[in-house]
Amino acid sequence: MIFASDNWAGASERVIEAVARAARAGGPAYGADDLTAAVTRRMSDLFDREVAVFFVATGTAANALALSSFARPGGIVLCHRSAHILADEAGATEFFSGGMRVVGLDGTGAKLDPAGLEAVLARYPEGSSHAGQPVALSLTNQTELGTVYTPAEVGALAAIARSRGLAVHMDGARFANAVAGLKASPAELTWKAGADVLSFGATKNGAIAADAVVFFDPDRARDVAFARQRAGHAFSKNWFAAAQYDAWLEGGHWLELASHANAMAARLAATIEASPHARLAVRPAGNEVFAVLTRDAARRLRDAGAAYYEWPAEDIAPPMRPGAGEVLVRLVASFRTAPDDVDRFGTLLHT
Amino acid sequence: MIFASDNWAGASERVIEAVARAARAGGPAYGADDLTAAVTRRMSDLFDREVAVFFVATGTAANALALSSFARPGGIVLCHRSAHILADEAGATEFFSGGMRVVGLDGTGAKLDPAGLEAVLARYPEGSSHAGQPVALSLTNQTELGTVYTPAEVGALAAIARSRGLAVHMDGARFANAVAGLKASPAELTWKAGADVLSFGATKNGAIAADAVVFFDPDRARDVAFARQRAGHAFSKNWFAAAQYDAWLEGGHWLELASHANAMAARLAATIEASPHARLAVRPAGNEVFAVLTRDAARRLRDAGAAYYEWPAEDIAPPMRPGAGEVLVRLVASFRTAPDDVDRFGTLLHT
Amino acid sequence: MIFASDNWAGASERVIEAVARAARAGGPAYGADDLTAAVTRRMSDLFDREVAVFFVATGTAANALALSSFARPGGIVLCHRSAHILADEAGATEFFSGGMRVVGLDGTGAKLDPAGLEAVLARYPEGSSHAGQPVALSLTNQTELGTVYTPAEVGALAAIARSRGLAVHMDGARFANAVAGLKASPAELTWKAGADVLSFGATKNGAIAADAVVFFDPDRARDVAFARQRAGHAFSKNWFAAAQYDAWLEGGHWLELASHANAMAARLAATIEASPHARLAVRPAGNEVFAVLTRDAARRLRDAGAAYYEWPAEDIAPPMRPGAGEVLVRLVASFRTAPDDVDRFGTLLHT
Amino acid sequence: MIFASDNWAGASERVIEAVARAARAGGPAYGADDLTAAVTRRMSDLFDREVAVFFVATGTAANALALSSFARPGGIVLCHRSAHILADEAGATEFFSGGMRVVGLDGTGAKLDPAGLEAVLARYPEGSSHAGQPVALSLTNQTELGTVYTPAEVGALAAIARSRGLAVHMDGARFANAVAGLKASPAELTWKAGADVLSFGATKNGAIAADAVVFFDPDRARDVAFARQRAGHAFSKNWFAAAQYDAWLEGGHWLELASHANAMAARLAATIEASPHARLAVRPAGNEVFAVLTRDAARRLRDAGAAYYEWPAEDIAPPMRPGAGEVLVRLVASFRTAPDDVDRFGTLLHT
Repeated sequence: MIFASDNWAGASERVIEAVARAARAGGPAYGADDLTAAVTRRMSDLFDREVAVFFVATGTAANALALSSFARPGGIVLCHRSAHILADEAGATEFFSGGMRVVGLDGTGAKLDPAGLEAVLARYPEGSSHAGQPVALSLTNQTELGTVYTPAEVGALAAIARSRGLAVHMDGARFANAVAGLKASPAELTWKAGADVLSFGATKNGAIAADAVVFFDPDRARDVAFARQRAGHAFSKNWFAAAQYDAWLEGGHWLELASHANAMAARLAATIEASPHARLAVRPAGNEVFAVLTRDAARRLRDAGAAYYEWPAEDIAPPMRPGAGEVLVRLVASFRTAPDDVDRFGTLLHT
Repeated sequence: MIFASDNWAGASERVIEAVARAARAGGPAYGADDLTAAVTRRMSDLFDREVAVFFVATGTAANALALSSFARPGGIVLCHRSAHILADEAGATEFFSGGMRVVGLDGTGAKLDPAGLEAVLARYPEGSSHAGQPVALSLTNQTELGTVYTPAEVGALAAIARSRGLAVHMDGARFANAVAGLKASPAELTWKAGADVLSFGATKNGAIAADAVVFFDPDRARDVAFARQRAGHAFSKNWFAAAQYDAWLEGGHWLELASHANAMAARLAATIEASPHARLAVRPAGNEVFAVLTRDAARRLRDAGAAYYEWPAEDIAPPMRPGAGEVLVRLVASFRTAPDDVDRFGTLLHT
Repeated sequence: MIFASDNWAGASERVIEAVARAARAGGPAYGADDLTAAVTRRMSDLFDREVAVFFVATGTAANALALSSFARPGGIVLCHRSAHILADEAGATEFFSGGMRVVGLDGTGAKLDPAGLEAVLARYPEGSSHAGQPVALSLTNQTELGTVYTPAEVGALAAIARSRGLAVHMDGARFANAVAGLKASPAELTWKAGADVLSFGATKNGAIAADAVVFFDPDRARDVAFARQRAGHAFSKNWFAAAQYDAWLEGGHWLELASHANAMAARLAATIEASPHARLAVRPAGNEVFAVLTRDAARRLRDAGAAYYEWPAEDIAPPMRPGAGEVLVRLVASFRTAPDDVDRFGTLLHT
Repeated sequence: MIFASDNWAGASERVIEAVARAARAGGPAYGADDLTAAVTRRMSDLFDREVAVFFVATGTAANALALSSFARPGGIVLCHRSAHILADEAGATEFFSGGMRVVGLDGTGAKLDPAGLEAVLARYPEGSSHAGQPVALSLTNQTELGTVYTPAEVGALAAIARSRGLAVHMDGARFANAVAGLKASPAELTWKAGADVLSFGATKNGAIAADAVVFFDPDRARDVAFARQRAGHAFSKNWFAAAQYDAWLEGGHWLELASHANAMAARLAATIEASPHARLAVRPAGNEVFAVLTRDAARRLRDAGAAYYEWPAEDIAPPMRPGAGEVLVRLVASFRTAPDDVDRFGTLLHT
């Protein structure tokens, strides 16, 4: 009953075998190998346009590298206040960009809304060098509360951002889960809706360590190879990352993995909704379930070996916020989550 | 006949299997897994003292993270002018440290000498805020020309550095080859000789992507976890790196791999010395051979499929520098280099 | 009727004459002159302990230089959300520190309170490298809403900060006004209450361009000369800044200037309180008055030539926040503000 | 007999009076005053095209702000190895630019030559992310050895730089002396020869503290106001800097001051050439004289109160380099240097 995080799962067998195969073969260094070329072609096919792809070691690196490519002095990145770039990356965006600021906005369900974005932008009059200048909007999809932005929602926010000259970044550490949940195409959910760059993560969904920055306009990425190199993210054995993506993307494997995780999350949600000792805090759209448990139920589950994280109550607005005797928890399903584990969790919850 | 670089080789079978095993198992994220703990113990045993170990994605990251831990305003890092941190990392040390400067010194055979180090330090009088302040010495061992520093040589340079308050870093991307060549213990070659921190690379010697920063005084490393996180080098699936080191260190596997590479380099050197069309530019001490070939011989080898890099003639001082009709080349042997390939290279060279 | 800002005023005659005198004399460069030494002595006398003093060009530079001296990877600076370092300096602290984050806290009257500080600190568990690590608390005194922290209030906040290992910085762009208003000694309001470093600004209170960073423990300032130099704030003609401070501090001139400004602000406040068309939004403790005017009154004043800034209504909590037909304004008195101007403003306001 | 540095001189009387006048007047903050507008017009007239002007506190700030406006990841700035940005600014360019590297080139008389520039550029193949990417060339005019680049020489170097996409910066801390010595127009020596941006310093030539960055293409300067603000170089009392430039530029005052300094340097050079105990190390073209003195003569001059700096012998190539019993000295004349002082120096030298 491991619901702690999707990054506790190991890797998909196909990915493991691809890495082993590539490691036995070896090949030219720094991306001159065939697998790297193949993945770039796969990505261009997937997104229905020519893209520039940069592998890096982690999702944090992907986000920071992507956002720093838009850095300007006094630059400001806008995101939801729960965003990984603000809450969990120890200032990576600030560091990569030479000191840009990341400003967190409110918004229900870990999602920004157009009015809130407009209101914040109004606080930065153009040309006022004191306040600084917003340069990028970062949207997390699937969000940090397991919700998703639809293509239309991305489009509405991106349009506002672009009208003010901001670039649009999508943190897609769980992009696979968002795509699988929405039945939207990767293109519709990104550049067709106004995104300039995507952190396209595979690590949380079946890869070993595979994160990539995908620029939808390769011309804007001319300095990224330098920025990646100086950040220590240019793999000499670049085929290591490429092999993972190659196997992961082939035949829609990535979406199969994500769909399974999403289905397990839905199964979890159903059993929570049916329990007298728990309720959903947020309606899940992907592979994460945020639920309010009674403290008794939470203790019972822990004692039985369930692994999950408690979550700050403030991340949920009233009336869904946990009350006295309750606790907010995050339950994450992965490509490896077994239905039996979910059902056992449910049984314990209903007791 | 691949002598282009040791990072063209794939990975050792034991490493591959260890990664596959770990990937099938999964485990807690961000270094809370058993393999990470096991490798820290192995490293402490290997170096004969308690060490702090930080995995990162590349040797560049290891160097920059290590050196940035000594950053101070106006800080200067001294190294040989051929050092990887100066020549090949696109300014990673400068970037990680918020703008420290890397200053390259001359020295025969890509090695610094005590007199040269003293002379450069004299140019930075203490407390003079205009010139900046040297904060660290970085030694590459095995060097960029395939030579090595002995423990005594490291000790002499480190003593000078420490007398001026500088920290001592060792870039050990090919530390295994140096240890294998010198028959010195890892401790003797590092902290016992005055090194504070080691970039202990496995990638060039049989791993897939495994680089680690080893601090010999864990107390000096208190901020490194933060620095690694914000640089995007904190792996969620840290067991991926740990599994590689675990297999690589077990039973001296790392030294077996390096010894083979060194032996193949020695075999290459012998055949070069015996050839009328080539000569050694530097006497090799590890797995890299720098040789001067006639242009005819070089062409013949290329045509036969030999892969290697030409090297800037300026890196070699007269009288060994290539003359008219000659070319300097670097030949790198790896854990996978086959004696037959070396012999075929030799045959072609003697023709 | 210039109430736009205290930095619209020119300079005090004594300061002007001191600069002219020094400029005619010239002298050794980079702080080796007699005036620089004299000011350091004056500052040590003033603060009743030996201090280290660094002149810089602006208050922004003073703040950023001071705070960056405590920089650590993943570092976080806590301050009030209205603080100049967060709202008006285009990311200077982030820039000087290589990417630290500045986090703004709520608090009535632009002042932090102990409970709020404790609550925020609790969000950063020690050793958690994801969230980052708070390294400094920055208090603005006089605050951005014209209120002041008493020595006891500084002490309560500093004690919390220090218990968590944070350094304590005071942004004293209007420190003179705070001291003049509180009748506390400079020592009581700073290091005796727990402050480590003060941005001690003279520019807003009668100097031409004079800002200084004062470290209360000179040992913690060992790298500041380097940091100042690389930030381009080491004046070759350092006597230029020293001359200003010398004249400004001599005989309590700085407090005379500040007391006048404070008295003029009090006079403004009195006339506002007595007006049917205006009310105080905050009770002033120094030289700034935040008032709510009817839009009619505001227009009348503008038309008559009054210069002042409208202020964001959100900076004032209900019930003092301006309602329909009202506007929040900031009125700043300076060492040069004439009673007649205040009275004329009052007359216009009462009409 | 103060020949230590031109920044030991105080300020010109006209500058002093202009500052005093402006300080008595006061005015709008942050450059909205009339003097700032007037100086921008004066500069545009002087350079015969519309320019963007940014005042900063020091020459170091001017250089670093100018160069950082061209920053790119892995960026490299090329300059002479004696350049102030490399030798005297504690890494300001590295700091302002988030870690660009400054690479020093050789060249006789502190001047770069086209062949040397071409040779260095060849070491950075375009698109090679390992070595980094040259982004700017910085020329110091007047140079650090008191020589000057003619417009044709600037043009030849700038053409090479521009052909590789590099921007061209001129460090003009002593630009006035270069212009006065060359009888070239400011336009001919800068943008007409290919310069993109000039650090136009007044501090060493009669101002109190006045340095400006002049962009010849205002469109390339769109982010500079933000960069200046976050570096703490946006003066609230911007009229302070503007008043200095206004008086300094008016009626060619700046060139009168520089011409006097140059004439005094020529007078020094003549007396040195005529002395049996001294010789010129470099033929002076501006206000700095580099001479080789016998140690006896040097001692005699010191004893008599002459102030000057000894200079590293390595900065001068054989055969002009000082030999045994000799010392290299730098003698700097300023707008205030008195002929009598020069003559007294000469008398002492001839004794």
